[in-house]
Amino acid sequence: MEILGGAHFAVAGAGESHGPGITTIVFGCPAGVPLSRAGVQDLLDRRRPGSNKLGTPRREGDKVVLLSGLYDEDHAALLGGAEVATRVGDEEILTPGYERGRATGEPIAAIVLSAAKRSADYAQFLGPAGDVRPGHTDLVKHHKSAGYTDPRGGGRSSYRSTISDVIGGAVARAFLAQRFGTAFFSSICQVGEIESGERLSGAVGDGRLTSEEAAALESRLEEPELRSLDAGFASEAARLIEVARKEGDSVGAALEIVAVNVPPLVGEPLYDSLKLRLMGSLGGLHAVQSCEMGSGREVVARRGSANNDPIRSGGYRTNHHGGLIGGITTGSPLVFRVGFKPTATIARPQDSVRKDLTEIEFRLNKGRHDPCVGVRAGVTLESRMAIEVADAVLAHQAGRIDEGNFRLFDGQGS
Amino acid sequence: MEILGGAHFAVAGAGESHGPGITTIVFGCPAGVPLSRAGVQDLLDRRRPGSNKLGTPRREGDKVVLLSGLYDEDHAALLGGAEVATRVGDEEILTPGYERGRATGEPIAAIVLSAAKRSADYAQFLGPAGDVRPGHTDLVKHHKSAGYTDPRGGGRSSYRSTISDVIGGAVARAFLAQRFGTAFFSSICQVGEIESGERLSGAVGDGRLTSEEAAALESRLEEPELRSLDAGFASEAARLIEVARKEGDSVGAALEIVAVNVPPLVGEPLYDSLKLRLMGSLGGLHAVQSCEMGSGREVVARRGSANNDPIRSGGYRTNHHGGLIGGITTGSPLVFRVGFKPTATIARPQDSVRKDLTEIEFRLNKGRHDPCVGVRAGVTLESRMAIEVADAVLAHQAGRIDEGNFRLFDGQGS
Amino acid sequence: MEILGGAHFAVAGAGESHGPGITTIVFGCPAGVPLSRAGVQDLLDRRRPGSNKLGTPRREGDKVVLLSGLYDEDHAALLGGAEVATRVGDEEILTPGYERGRATGEPIAAIVLSAAKRSADYAQFLGPAGDVRPGHTDLVKHHKSAGYTDPRGGGRSSYRSTISDVIGGAVARAFLAQRFGTAFFSSICQVGEIESGERLSGAVGDGRLTSEEAAALESRLEEPELRSLDAGFASEAARLIEVARKEGDSVGAALEIVAVNVPPLVGEPLYDSLKLRLMGSLGGLHAVQSCEMGSGREVVARRGSANNDPIRSGGYRTNHHGGLIGGITTGSPLVFRVGFKPTATIARPQDSVRKDLTEIEFRLNKGRHDPCVGVRAGVTLESRMAIEVADAVLAHQAGRIDEGNFRLFDGQGS
Amino acid sequence: MEILGGAHFAVAGAGESHGPGITTIVFGCPAGVPLSRAGVQDLLDRRRPGSNKLGTPRREGDKVVLLSGLYDEDHAALLGGAEVATRVGDEEILTPGYERGRATGEPIAAIVLSAAKRSADYAQFLGPAGDVRPGHTDLVKHHKSAGYTDPRGGGRSSYRSTISDVIGGAVARAFLAQRFGTAFFSSICQVGEIESGERLSGAVGDGRLTSEEAAALESRLEEPELRSLDAGFASEAARLIEVARKEGDSVGAALEIVAVNVPPLVGEPLYDSLKLRLMGSLGGLHAVQSCEMGSGREVVARRGSANNDPIRSGGYRTNHHGGLIGGITTGSPLVFRVGFKPTATIARPQDSVRKDLTEIEFRLNKGRHDPCVGVRAGVTLESRMAIEVADAVLAHQAGRIDEGNFRLFDGQGS
Repeated sequence: MEILGGAHFAVAGAGESHGPGITTIVFGCPAGVPLSRAGVQDLLDRRRPGSNKLGTPRREGDKVVLLSGLYDEDHAALLGGAEVATRVGDEEILTPGYERGRATGEPIAAIVLSAAKRSADYAQFLGPAGDVRPGHTDLVKHHKSAGYTDPRGGGRSSYRSTISDVIGGAVARAFLAQRFGTAFFSSICQVGEIESGERLSGAVGDGRLTSEEAAALESRLEEPELRSLDAGFASEAARLIEVARKEGDSVGAALEIVAVNVPPLVGEPLYDSLKLRLMGSLGGLHAVQSCEMGSGREVVARRGSANNDPIRSGGYRTNHHGGLIGGITTGSPLVFRVGFKPTATIARPQDSVRKDLTEIEFRLNKGRHDPCVGVRAGVTLESRMAIEVADAVLAHQAGRIDEGNFRLFDGQGS
Repeated sequence: MEILGGAHFAVAGAGESHGPGITTIVFGCPAGVPLSRAGVQDLLDRRRPGSNKLGTPRREGDKVVLLSGLYDEDHAALLGGAEVATRVGDEEILTPGYERGRATGEPIAAIVLSAAKRSADYAQFLGPAGDVRPGHTDLVKHHKSAGYTDPRGGGRSSYRSTISDVIGGAVARAFLAQRFGTAFFSSICQVGEIESGERLSGAVGDGRLTSEEAAALESRLEEPELRSLDAGFASEAARLIEVARKEGDSVGAALEIVAVNVPPLVGEPLYDSLKLRLMGSLGGLHAVQSCEMGSGREVVARRGSANNDPIRSGGYRTNHHGGLIGGITTGSPLVFRVGFKPTATIARPQDSVRKDLTEIEFRLNKGRHDPCVGVRAGVTLESRMAIEVADAVLAHQAGRIDEGNFRLFDGQGS
Repeated sequence: MEILGGAHFAVAGAGESHGPGITTIVFGCPAGVPLSRAGVQDLLDRRRPGSNKLGTPRREGDKVVLLSGLYDEDHAALLGGAEVATRVGDEEILTPGYERGRATGEPIAAIVLSAAKRSADYAQFLGPAGDVRPGHTDLVKHHKSAGYTDPRGGGRSSYRSTISDVIGGAVARAFLAQRFGTAFFSSICQVGEIESGERLSGAVGDGRLTSEEAAALESRLEEPELRSLDAGFASEAARLIEVARKEGDSVGAALEIVAVNVPPLVGEPLYDSLKLRLMGSLGGLHAVQSCEMGSGREVVARRGSANNDPIRSGGYRTNHHGGLIGGITTGSPLVFRVGFKPTATIARPQDSVRKDLTEIEFRLNKGRHDPCVGVRAGVTLESRMAIEVADAVLAHQAGRIDEGNFRLFDGQGS
Repeated sequence: MEILGGAHFAVAGAGESHGPGITTIVFGCPAGVPLSRAGVQDLLDRRRPGSNKLGTPRREGDKVVLLSGLYDEDHAALLGGAEVATRVGDEEILTPGYERGRATGEPIAAIVLSAAKRSADYAQFLGPAGDVRPGHTDLVKHHKSAGYTDPRGGGRSSYRSTISDVIGGAVARAFLAQRFGTAFFSSICQVGEIESGERLSGAVGDGRLTSEEAAALESRLEEPELRSLDAGFASEAARLIEVARKEGDSVGAALEIVAVNVPPLVGEPLYDSLKLRLMGSLGGLHAVQSCEMGSGREVVARRGSANNDPIRSGGYRTNHHGGLIGGITTGSPLVFRVGFKPTATIARPQDSVRKDLTEIEFRLNKGRHDPCVGVRAGVTLESRMAIEVADAVLAHQAGRIDEGNFRLFDGQGS
């Protein structure tokens, strides 16, 4: 079952690359968390390639409408925003969506419709003898589904499906921000062979930021040509991506994902640990091929005496561990690094097959694509981290029973 | 997490009684199953009170739009039907939904928007000192959510949320019908003290019906004033419901739910048995207080020699067991009986409290309701049965490995 | 996956009727709950047929040993009890099990080994042409597993596997008793056509019992020849069971299952509601064919004005609803009634088949069995109720965040 | 809930470092798979530090006994091996465990008892003012559980708990070997700064090995001083570990994990993809801080034209993708690389705190530990990979319905 998160906080998603829209249901937001459509939209907007010239030219002006799970006694505030309508035969139904309110604890649904799709771009991939793009899911999905797949754009195996991640992450972030001030950041730290000189993990210190400090960090990340702490690196990386595009090629990227003001003591042991969940959720995203925690792959070469983080009464003095010990949060920043492969779709000719396994030299007929998928993925990774932390927070709270929460009539539950 | 079904076939639902709409995601439909919007709509239409005068006067012309999980190379067929649109600020997006195609195996999403709601009817229930309707969730949900509930119509604890059940059931039915000819029926067998003289379990014989026989049975059930095998009983029951309505009162009902052409050998042992799942899914529906399988409560009074069903080479000769032995299907019809309490919302004065526990004599100010919720529930119960059977079918198939399903290139997986 | 309970509190079981033993793992017990092997054993002892002459003559002196999930700084207390040993080749390992301590929050494992089994009794059922007992799982399990089943005693589809239910229930009960004083009771209320004159639901009043009152009620239930509030009924029922046995026949039974001091506000809406879970868990037990909540099947015949339970500031005045409104606990007693079919295994000749579908007149060669399986099932049903309530309590607590539970170093998580 | 794997094939584990034993239940093994206690034991033996001098001197002669889920008509074969016994008060029960048979499809339980534990080694960690080892779970687990933790050896956060992984993996491997010839290997490829010159991914070619080739590869891996393809590297690495030990220090390590004869088309999209599951399961193991697939972190620096794997009619020509495209198996070898931190427990003094946060200079009083935890982890990682692949295989099969598997009586299910 396609569910992101865990038993306490989870996101169900549906919708393929070229279908009518992406549908999302978010489960487990505690009653009372303040939510707004605009807040969700702000994070969705970060998925778009609009802010610079490096992404795909398809403008995806994705707009979210919320369909359930909020309430406010002020119905004008609750309903005074977006609208949604359906027409079936002669019957039209139009209703306002939810604009802002408090979570009721019931599932929160959202839809994001798709604007015009250029399905014609995909003619060369259709049918049982359609071309197979190297590095894409065309071949395995065709055979896995015995031919009953949607060949336009890869179905769910598309960047578009991560809209649900961001919507779920927006709810998780609202919850964690309200209760703990937790904030999530990402910074591009490598593009091709070029590496950033600054690390997000270094910029957040011991991981306790005021809301002003968090806002300032967010602003700083927004400024460069690519979302990164290091503006010089960002400019150079942008140029590299542009070169790759002109050459009909693509390039890989790596990102740091960091959370601050992380509630400590969160995460279960072993098979359901927060580390396992984060390694899977971040490392399992489309096009990702590596996932590292804290000092990551570097720790292999270290001695224990250099790698163990000293502890003082105020907290850990260093954060090689990346915020999790034994899969449980220490309150130090969560620090992960994720590496993306270069975009599989390129303009250069390559050895490939048709879906019937006839060998071809593959040439892309139409369509343009991101030359570097990694650089837009930050908000998705932040979202996935937020979803897993929210789930783990609720799991930890479940075991700390306070009888005061179990009272209705006088004398009951006492 | 609010999921109906199991790990293989499941339905996620969202949307409260008076919200913008009901959102549904169906997981696990095998690739290749033929699906159509019209087929889902037909089953949804059975939820409506339109066909007779016994239901709530609120006309619920629920129209479904499918947003994902289908494909057909004939895009005119795939897209030539319903439309959905959103407006956020100045940006409008309009797209066709899916009309008909084959399941791709990816999640199937659907929305059903709500037409105008008369929220004003609910004024007396609003706020921390709102009235509490006896038999309703007003009080428990208010305190459970620390006040952050939607007090209009009970939120998810509303008949309206079962739209998702029916949509999920429609997909499950399409799958099971295609593969096994399985069909699901329900018949009202008791209203108040009046009982039907005919039993659905008797009408289906050994449970192997041709598609013509199944269609004929369905037609026969549709004809009476209430959906029932026994037209005389149905007329009498309809009058009783009308009397109850005029008296500002309500009345209970019981239904039989039966499946034919059930694939045998389906269901897991013990904690995840199909019996456990069906008893929960059917017996757990809103307003249900009893659930019986096969001969149900009557078997308590029997001797084993009278209750054991004799077995011959062609199958079980009787069906006291109701289609499941040890939680596994025998191929005999699945037979369940479900009892509903009388509708809790009535016009008569009753002892109650406000949400702050102040005692009141409760009188309903506005709003009209079904005097007999049970009589519309048949399609929901059939749907839940179909969902659980579909899940169990997939679970059984999972354990029967055929290496031929694991081949891509020559020589692989062999 | 064979798991009883939910995502927060769950029981995994393994072990078939005639295997080496029953293995149980209990997940989700909050850290700090006091547990003892003796406490678990006391409940297991209630499964045995020893206390009267009505059960199967096979004496099942089941002894439990706890293998994980407890701790106490006093190692003598922790370890000073049962022992367990393995011998593999020449290597023997012997270790004490856990005797008493506090739950650590980690999984609690237990084993109950089987004493000598009379497998010879099962010779007539072995092999692909073995006899099929009507009403048993012999036929469906043989074909479901393509012949790879354990034909001795039904494998997991055996009463013996409910040892795990009772162990899990014992942990759930310890947790709920410590925190809320919750207690669980069962009473046989019907055997064959004979019905008890007293109802457990009547005996518990508004469901708030002191620990003395709860102990007195438990004692009263233990006294009669069969576990029942009504000693006269119990004697008569015992005689009926003895008659059935002598005639080579069997008889059905019904039980009431009731919980008191139930924490209110517990249970999720709709698809994961506590009602759905309890109807499934209780109604899904082997040999059960009906499950009713509160006034059960009787409510069908009622008017709403008679069925709605009046509410006063101190609580509900009646309990037709059975402790759950909208699937959420009201604090009134949980009241369920479960009906068992007569034991399928009887000595009388019956029409049946071999596993290869050859028709036979089935006669039981050897082996003796309970003539009334229902009468020993009370402790299993109480256990299942406790497991579901524990899970729902933890789920409710999860949504009520108290930041004080998320602190480690000074200033963190605040 | 602490479950490894997914809904189709899963492993539940219980048992802490210094408790009586490790209990394991394996769910979802298809009926008919041949299993033996000796086969499980062989894999468990690979966890032991006995074969060389680099592991912890505590000899862990772990012996497994199987308690359920197997059957063989030849009871001498089924039962003719290990024994298990319990003693509770005066009652002793001794029973043979299962030695060899076919899986019945029901849960498979296993216990591994612990021989004498030197709990005295842990005196310095006990109580609310016990010392905290840097890099260990002492501090977080103490506070997470409000003090109700087992302070000896870290409870479940111990290498010992991975016994369940290996047992579950043994079952998964038996299933996959029987059906597909799938085999799993691991090779240590880095210790501290020393790297192996040979790669397992290179040694397996296109991933189609005969059983002889697989056996030869396994033998080659067993030979060196450390399990590795590169014997020269292994000797040098072993010396480095010995140096670290003598200096009271520890060192990190990295391993490659590879599967061959992998069935293609396995894995679900997006949120439940096999990539997500493997990144989580492998990357989430204790002490792991990095997890890479295929060419791993190196792909970030590449161009798409260099990274896309060419496809010919016989399969992929290179395997930078590591066996998964879009989270679905291609039939190329599964290739993962996992990096372990240096063992946290070292003899050198370090800045730390007591559990009450008093600052101390921590010095380890007693106890000896692996100076390099990574070098023993190969079998655990192979096991986790096998468990996830088995789950994904069953999930894929679930959607491929063959009506022939749903037949009991003549004419049913057809």
